[in-house]
Order: sequence, then C-alpha cells, then structure tokens
Amino acid sequence: MRKLYAIGIGAGDPEHLTVQAIDRLNRVDVFFVLEKGEEKADLVRLRQEILDRFVTRPGYRVVRATDPPRDRDPGNYLAAVADWHRRRTDVYERMIRDELAEGQHGAFLVWGDPSLYDSTITLIEAVLARGTVAFEYEVVPGVSSVSALVARHRTTMNQIGTAVQVTTGRRLASGWPAGVDDVFVMLDAHTTFDRFTDAGLEIFWGAYVGTPDEILLSGPLDSALSDRIRETRAEARARHGWIMDIYLLRRPSQGAPETR
Amino acid sequence: MRKLYAIGIGAGDPEHLTVQAIDRLNRVDVFFVLEKGEEKADLVRLRQEILDRFVTRPGYRVVRATDPPRDRDPGNYLAAVADWHRRRTDVYERMIRDELAEGQHGAFLVWGDPSLYDSTITLIEAVLARGTVAFEYEVVPGVSSVSALVARHRTTMNQIGTAVQVTTGRRLASGWPAGVDDVFVMLDAHTTFDRFTDAGLEIFWGAYVGTPDEILLSGPLDSALSDRIRETRAEARARHGWIMDIYLLRRPSQGAPETR
Repeated sequence: MRKLYAIGIGAGDPEHLTVQAIDRLNRVDVFFVLEKGEEKADLVRLRQEILDRFVTRPGYRVVRATDPPRDRDPGNYLAAVADWHRRRTDVYERMIRDELAEGQHGAFLVWGDPSLYDSTITLIEAVLARGTVAFEYEVVPGVSSVSALVARHRTTMNQIGTAVQVTTGRRLASGWPAGVDDVFVMLDAHTTFDRFTDAGLEIFWGAYVGTPDEILLSGPLDSALSDRIRETRAEARARHGWIMDIYLLRRPSQGAPETR
Repeated sequence: MRKLYAIGIGAGDPEHLTVQAIDRLNRVDVFFVLEKGEEKADLVRLRQEILDRFVTRPGYRVVRATDPPRDRDPGNYLAAVADWHRRRTDVYERMIRDELAEGQHGAFLVWGDPSLYDSTITLIEAVLARGTVAFEYEVVPGVSSVSALVARHRTTMNQIGTAVQVTTGRRLASGWPAGVDDVFVMLDAHTTFDRFTDAGLEIFWGAYVGTPDEILLSGPLDSALSDRIRETRAEARARHGWIMDIYLLRRPSQGAPETR
C-alpha cells in the first residue's frame, strides 16, 4: 500500500518542526512540491533547507509540479474555486499514481498547520474519492501561523472566556464578525484592517513570521498605525516579490481590566 | 536578568514537541508546575515524561505549587474570575521572585499552545505589571488541541473560504455562533453539543487526543451519536478521574460539493 503524509512544517521557522514531523520526514521516499511561480522561490528554498537540516535518511526524491493558476477575480467565486480544485486534483492524482510506487511513502509539506486555509487534505481526499489509486494517509499537525503570530507578539488568541474567529480578508470586508472580540485575518491582499481604524481596536500584525525577515507591528489601530502597516507591507512585498502576512484585530472585551 | 519561557508542549503526544521547545527546555534551570489536584496526576506524569525524554542538560529543578481553586459556579462570573486571577498572580509572583535567581531561566510548560484558553501569558504579564520582580520572557508556540483534533480526524478547520470560530461550552450554550459554519468547542463540561442534534451538523469529537488513551468519534450529529459521545465521555471520565476533550461542530457550507 502507498502511504501519504500531509506534514505541517510550521509557520516559517525551521525550529517549529515537531518530533513527529521529523520522524515522518525520515520515512518519505518522495516529497511532492507544488510550485506556484517564481515569486515564491524563497519558500521553495526554505522548504529545501528544512529537508537538508532534518532528513538524515538518504535517497529521497523531490517531485515538482506546477500548481494550476487560479482565477483571482472570477465572476462566480464558487464555480472558479471548483474548477481550480478539479485541476489541482488532477495534478495530485498524477503525482501520487505515477511517481509513487506500491509500498512507498510520499509527503506534502504544508506551511503552518495542514488544517487551516490549506487545501492539501481536501485534495488528498478528492483523489481518494476518485478511486483511481489506493493509499493510506496521515496528517501531522504543525504550529499554525495563528499560534506563531501571537507567540511573537506575546499575547493570547482569546480574552478570558471569549470566542475567537479566524477568517479571510474577503469575509472581513463585509463587516466585523458578530459575537467575537478577537479576529484573525488570513489571505488578505487588500489590507482590510484599514476599514476598522479609530474604532477602539488593537491590531497585532506580522509578516514572514518566524523567518529572519519577520516584521511585527502592533498597537491601537488608529489611522497612523494603519498607514504604517500598509506602507510597510507594500514596501516589503515589493522588496521580496511576495508576502505572507496575518493579523489579529482585538476589541478589548468587557471584563474587569485585571482579568485581561 | 531572569528569563522565563512559556513553552507549548503540544496536545498530549510527546512527539508534538517542536525543535524550538526542546532547545528552550534545555536552557531551563527551574520548571514551574502548577498542580490542580489529584485528578490531574496523569498530566503531571506526562509532563515529567516529556522532561525525562527531551531534557539532556542535568541539574534542573522542578518547583511545584498548588493552583488556587476556582469557584466553578459563581454568582458573578467576571468577579470570580478576577479574584481567581489575583490569587494565581500571587502564586506566580512568589515562584518567579523566590525560586529563580538572578540570571536563571525558568519555564512554564503549557499543554497545547500557550495562546489558546490558557492563562500563563496573562499571568506572566500580570506579574510584570506589579513591578516586584524584573524578567524577560519568551513564548514558544505549540501544536494546539484544535490542530491535533482535526489532524487525527483528517479533516480541516475551515471549509473553502469560510470562517472558523473557537469558543467555549458556556458560550455555545447561548446558541449557534453567527456567521460561521465550523465551531470548535473547548472547556465544555456539559456536552453542549446535544442541543444541536438532528440539525444537519457533523461532529468531530476527541478526548485525550494524541495520548494512548485517545478516543475519537465523528459523524452526522443525530441523537444516537450524541448519546454515544455523552456515554463514552462519562465512562472515560469516571475511569480516568478526569477528561480533556474538544470537538468541532460543522455545518456543511453552501459551496458546490466538489469544492469541499
């Protein structure tokens, strides 16, 4: 039986790797790497550094494939996502069926945690559902970008007894989520936080968290800080050719001050 | 200068320890352990196993203190939390000031990730704010119980493009959170999921996740499964003397089926 691993490799710091992840890395015959284009070459290199540092078992192969491009501004969002999903499933199916022999172990390395805004598990399940190639698979959890962000800011995800939401820039654009005081925003290319300036919020923002290029900014979200984050982000994105950022928006909750 | 670490040690599987956590464990002179009473002796033992397995630097000390008890059913929830918080801050202050010498490193080991429904960071900040003892501190992120749960169930936290909420049993009791299809529930002693049976939801439940005692149950949340989880939970709690469980309630979202 073929075996696959979806391995969380942490949010950018190679030291986020877990003992379990390192153990699984050393069982792998073939690493599958989906390349999203030139701008992410830094991430491909960082992934290779992780393999070089932690894999002691010789003889593994790295199989690269091109991640099908996605229509970033489609008329029908869900239909475009479904089409993209089918094309990606084709790529995964071919890699697993054609590049992994019976009895071999393959792995997808996933930044952060494989469960959060990542499609690897969904795509593996979609290949399984097609029934064209049989395999077992295991998910290895990792340090998420959410955990990495708040660790670097030395703050918590939740306030005492309150709920936390993790959402996308697209969703935040439609308004502050109901019923929560702490909102993590991922996949936000449009600095949506700037719609919430001077509203009594705090922001904890980070880019390239856990890497030597890490940038952290935080404080009461007034227009000066909003501008500063937007400018810092644009400058860093231009310099690196890509950016991976995440932020927490916090509305100080109604608890007594000493409980926070 | 004294230095403290709040180290996430993962959700119960010693193999969740990160390279960073193991590095920091080996810089520590004094580990602080807050004991919550007899019923959690299993967790104290598991923590010691982690030290025995990963700490190679000899000569560390373990300082134990009793975590002040909390009024579990107070008239005024916030006032009771604030009072408990003050008593716990007293304990942390005494440990850091009296048990750690100038220049020494101390650590609190935190199950899961220190940022999620854990008070260590808040208490360290509260001691700092008192100004009675000076120290630096660092937060080391870990694999959260949320990540561990969904990894074991091989599912994702979010559906495509949708938001995720992490909340408490107490909050879920007041109704399904607005605007989200995926809700993680922690700290739920009252099996609050049973209020949502036969409502088209799926549940992914786990207890002692990542340990040899792990129990996983999942499926469409009908009354049969709800009863089964409640009975399994009660039986396990009676057998172990304590339980640590968490679950995801999922409302299948409106995306085309092939996008999920």
